Amino acid sequence: MNCLNINKWCFALLVVSFFVLNTSCKQNSEASVLEADVVSSIEIKNEIERVEPMHWWVGFKNTELQLLVKHPNISAATPKISYKGVSIKKVNKADSPNYLFIDLDISKETKAGQFNIVFKFKDGNELTQTYQLKTRETPAADFVGFDSSDAVYLITPDRFVNGDTSNDIDETLNEKTINREDNYARHGGDIKGITQRLDYISDMGFTAIWPCPLLTNDMANSSYHGYAMTDFYQIDPRFGTLDDYRELADKSRARGIKLIMDQVANHCGSAHWWMKDLPFKDWLNYQENFENGGKLKTSNHRRTSNQDIYASKIDKEEMANGWFVSAMPDLNQRNPFMAKYIIQNSIWWVETVGLGGIRQDTYPYPDKAFMSEWAGSIMTEYPNFSIVGEEWSTNPLLIGYWQDGANNRDGYDSNLKSPMDFAMQSSIVKALNEEETWDEGLVKMYEGLANDFYYASPKDLMVFPDNHDMSRIFTQLKGDIPNTKIALSYILTMPRIPQIYYGTEILMNDFQKPGDHGLIRTDFPGGWQNDAVNAFTGKGLSNEQKDMQLYLKKLLNFRKDSEAIHNGETLHFAPFKGTYVLFRTLNDEVVVHIINKNNTPITLDLTRYAEVGLKGKTLKNIITNETFVWGDRIILKEKGSLVYTTKL
Amino acid sequence: MNCLNINKWCFALLVVSFFVLNTSCKQNSEASVLEADVVSSIEIKNEIERVEPMHWWVGFKNTELQLLVKHPNISAATPKISYKGVSIKKVNKADSPNYLFIDLDISKETKAGQFNIVFKFKDGNELTQTYQLKTRETPAADFVGFDSSDAVYLITPDRFVNGDTSNDIDETLNEKTINREDNYARHGGDIKGITQRLDYISDMGFTAIWPCPLLTNDMANSSYHGYAMTDFYQIDPRFGTLDDYRELADKSRARGIKLIMDQVANHCGSAHWWMKDLPFKDWLNYQENFENGGKLKTSNHRRTSNQDIYASKIDKEEMANGWFVSAMPDLNQRNPFMAKYIIQNSIWWVETVGLGGIRQDTYPYPDKAFMSEWAGSIMTEYPNFSIVGEEWSTNPLLIGYWQDGANNRDGYDSNLKSPMDFAMQSSIVKALNEEETWDEGLVKMYEGLANDFYYASPKDLMVFPDNHDMSRIFTQLKGDIPNTKIALSYILTMPRIPQIYYGTEILMNDFQKPGDHGLIRTDFPGGWQNDAVNAFTGKGLSNEQKDMQLYLKKLLNFRKDSEAIHNGETLHFAPFKGTYVLFRTLNDEVVVHIINKNNTPITLDLTRYAEVGLKGKTLKNIITNETFVWGDRIILKEKGSLVYTTKL
Repeated sequence: MNCLNINKWCFALLVVSFFVLNTSCKQNSEASVLEADVVSSIEIKNEIERVEPMHWWVGFKNTELQLLVKHPNISAATPKISYKGVSIKKVNKADSPNYLFIDLDISKETKAGQFNIVFKFKDGNELTQTYQLKTRETPAADFVGFDSSDAVYLITPDRFVNGDTSNDIDETLNEKTINREDNYARHGGDIKGITQRLDYISDMGFTAIWPCPLLTNDMANSSYHGYAMTDFYQIDPRFGTLDDYRELADKSRARGIKLIMDQVANHCGSAHWWMKDLPFKDWLNYQENFENGGKLKTSNHRRTSNQDIYASKIDKEEMANGWFVSAMPDLNQRNPFMAKYIIQNSIWWVETVGLGGIRQDTYPYPDKAFMSEWAGSIMTEYPNFSIVGEEWSTNPLLIGYWQDGANNRDGYDSNLKSPMDFAMQSSIVKALNEEETWDEGLVKMYEGLANDFYYASPKDLMVFPDNHDMSRIFTQLKGDIPNTKIALSYILTMPRIPQIYYGTEILMNDFQKPGDHGLIRTDFPGGWQNDAVNAFTGKGLSNEQKDMQLYLKKLLNFRKDSEAIHNGETLHFAPFKGTYVLFRTLNDEVVVHIINKNNTPITLDLTRYAEVGLKGKTLKNIITNETFVWGDRIILKEKGSLVYTTKL
Repeated sequence: MNCLNINKWCFALLVVSFFVLNTSCKQNSEASVLEADVVSSIEIKNEIERVEPMHWWVGFKNTELQLLVKHPNISAATPKISYKGVSIKKVNKADSPNYLFIDLDISKETKAGQFNIVFKFKDGNELTQTYQLKTRETPAADFVGFDSSDAVYLITPDRFVNGDTSNDIDETLNEKTINREDNYARHGGDIKGITQRLDYISDMGFTAIWPCPLLTNDMANSSYHGYAMTDFYQIDPRFGTLDDYRELADKSRARGIKLIMDQVANHCGSAHWWMKDLPFKDWLNYQENFENGGKLKTSNHRRTSNQDIYASKIDKEEMANGWFVSAMPDLNQRNPFMAKYIIQNSIWWVETVGLGGIRQDTYPYPDKAFMSEWAGSIMTEYPNFSIVGEEWSTNPLLIGYWQDGANNRDGYDSNLKSPMDFAMQSSIVKALNEEETWDEGLVKMYEGLANDFYYASPKDLMVFPDNHDMSRIFTQLKGDIPNTKIALSYILTMPRIPQIYYGTEILMNDFQKPGDHGLIRTDFPGGWQNDAVNAFTGKGLSNEQKDMQLYLKKLLNFRKDSEAIHNGETLHFAPFKGTYVLFRTLNDEVVVHIINKNNTPITLDLTRYAEVGLKGKTLKNIITNETFVWGDRIILKEKGSLVYTTKL
């Protein structure tokens, strides 16, 4: 009689004698059923090298859990669990003798608690690992993700604020130095630094933060960026601890700021712990090249092969299976154990930290059927959650393909709420850099936004002036401050989820070496003790920097309460004489966004916008607070954008 | 008792006494029912200035017919018809007293024949117009339109061949001169010229011709292009007669060549006959500007407003209702009489000439609900017909929106089989002009074709290297002959309906003034008596011209029989070292298209294409006829494209 049958029998008993203290099970077999209160008194043992996830919860919709167990020769052992409501469905051996994958079933009625997993070897030896099932602290529906009412602050943690100098160097890790003079070395920024500056972030008007990855990157160099993870369950000690991360989440939440975790399902770092002893022959893609010491196979990066109905098998395979770069082994999500590992890892972090969203790196690179399953699994557990995926394409066809609800002819549904909108980013930069002609200049913004008819949900796309992988917007716009303001105000009024990279508010740039990643991720001034310039206090900032910081602060704080921007109807008018006007309307609130690229004053005929019905209404300039009665014309004095609201 | 009721009664009688000669109806009323044999003996009278359509047919699915009747003060008259199976459903007065629009119902049983329409005035006066209902010569299903098995030759009729010098000048029309020295004057080409050269067109391998409009353009100047029609029912006398046009259709059909008619639903020419006496106040868009002698309102040409969910009403209105240019009054298809007029006109031409397709000009400019009705009405009558529509956009989102079967979120279904593929045209030119880099060069072709996943039916899009409105492909490709061959061979092997502009085969160009419309539409050498150069005979052609002509001839004639190209599966491989390979496969035929942009010999590793399964198979170069056994590699000696087939 196995555990499963006994459980069934117990369940039947429970139904019959629900209000009766059921001692019958206990008497049934000492080896198979233990009550939670009994379990809590078990002796805690941690004799196994690694069990992941390290703990789990009761109460998920998905009652299955797969444990990765790593220990020398563990495949020779048989695991046993004696805990009411937990049964071993299957024990899976791997190709390496040092792994076991245990499929558990956790019934809906299982109570939180601890139990031992006993690994019995044929020679009679035993190893014991205590495992905990926790109670979920927060109802699933309360994990509310970011949406178009939010504005996201993207942070490169190593470069924002060094809040704890004691963790700058960790002698147990490969990269042991910090050097602020070297743009590709670690600079010491950390989680505590972000936590310390939450007031600044909140005051600026941001309602969500997306720090680039915080998990351990035990790489020999360039570990600062975080995308070469060597442990998917550990906060990099140089960034802090799990408690630091939970503190960041809790203090953010207390300020109404959602914490978005940057996750990577496509690859790990080449120093990942499992690289020395891979569980399966197909744990990685092109694993044989790695194991034979051959040339590593990198991706062809031909992302269109995901959609292309004519794409060759080899192109699809090289796209999905090739390594992103040779230092980043490509995870094979078609191995079902890898697939479960990644999904459980994501859910573990959402639940452990109380996340307000996930940002998924290199979205089109993993197996796309898996990515749909991954996002679907998370959204099933957290129906109000949000995930944003990075598809670096300026082709709306590809961007839209990845969005949940797309009318894809191949039937693919990604379950992904928010693709990144690289197309719009590119259109905005072109629109502002180009001279105005019939088909160049502002028309690029106008026609870019007109593509929204294709998307399943345009307002759930995430738009941005720049990010950690491209030139700073101020650099992209050639140091033009009015154009930079136009880009920011447009992004913050259009129907999207806006994301702003840290430092944009103080005109951070990469003119010195445009596009250089290390330079783009320059230290935020004031984030380090004794910084000559301090953007938190304003000390040492130029007038232009202070002006931009205030401009963005006003915009963001206005946006925070503008439901017309969050969810209003959108109406825009074809560009005309270097101007372009966008309206957002919800109930009695109308937000007007006027772009003017003319350097000399021009009069805008407002009768053209009569259908909006603003005539005679008073509007307030949200930057200057000046009011203005909508009449037949307005004089636009200088290049830039004007944002008005009817909410006075 | 009106005619309708009598007809119903007759129909009941017919059912009862089907095999009995039914004389009862005849006796019923002399005014209401006449047999066809009686009608044939009527006295033919043509006392009315204009009735359109001038004749019609029995046997359409749509039993309704609306006659436009124009005659001084005709609105004061009451029309009567006495013909079995034809009843007047409604007589509609217009705003002008000189028009009547008569709604007829032609029952399914109506026999072909002639009858009189008698217009009775209150003063007792009568006018009589004889009207004919013809028998349809060809079953509806036999009007088979162009498809991906065809290759279309686009011709500017005034500039191709002057087959009849007697019609060069028509003294009754406004533009009375021909002047071959003036690129914007008429040059004398005509329908007979095309008919005389059908052997050339057929020998070249084309299976369809699309002459630019042949209807009367009685404009004061630039009438040669044909898009400013002043009579929708008349062949321009300088191009020939209706009989000439029917002869062209018949002789084309006899050679397996489909005749595509270029139609314009959006506008007419400012010298159209109705401009002096417009039937309704809303016959044209912005008609008031015209009638008040005010500034004519031209279109804003913001075509994205057709799809844009945020577009303002004024932009949509200015797009659809503004005049294309001020010499082309914009037809208001929301006036139901105009809508019927255009639809009936199209059907009249299909039926009269036996067309093999329609090309619709400026597709996104007319009212889009009307355009769907227009195309739907034609396709209902001719289920195997084809229509190609001109959406001059390089944005696949817009192109795809217009195709029948598109997954449009707004539910719009155009009923249009074939949008023009300006996106692919543009991608091909970029791909060939750009230097090869990671994201430039051939990848533009590859990723352009990858967008096909979005289209309802990619192979029904019409692709082209150039057309009458853009620089010649040889000019666009900067005089590069290998690149020109690559463009042509790619267009002729990809899953599309290819269209080639006359003269492409002899490298016609507009280097002298790139983009100049008159220059683009240069005379085809040999089309005029005593031309020094004759492309039909080869006299005076350069070696490069002869070579290109032969190249295209071989390609087209190969394509004509290649079902793999017409309907085969498509497979392509990401560009690699300046090469790009496309395969088309159907049953036992594989067509291989290899593009090589390298100027020095390179070896292409064929093992990359192993999945196609060609190893060991013999392939034939369709240009040189050389055979080649598919092995592990092929040496590409020079820049250009290679087309192979497994059909030896």
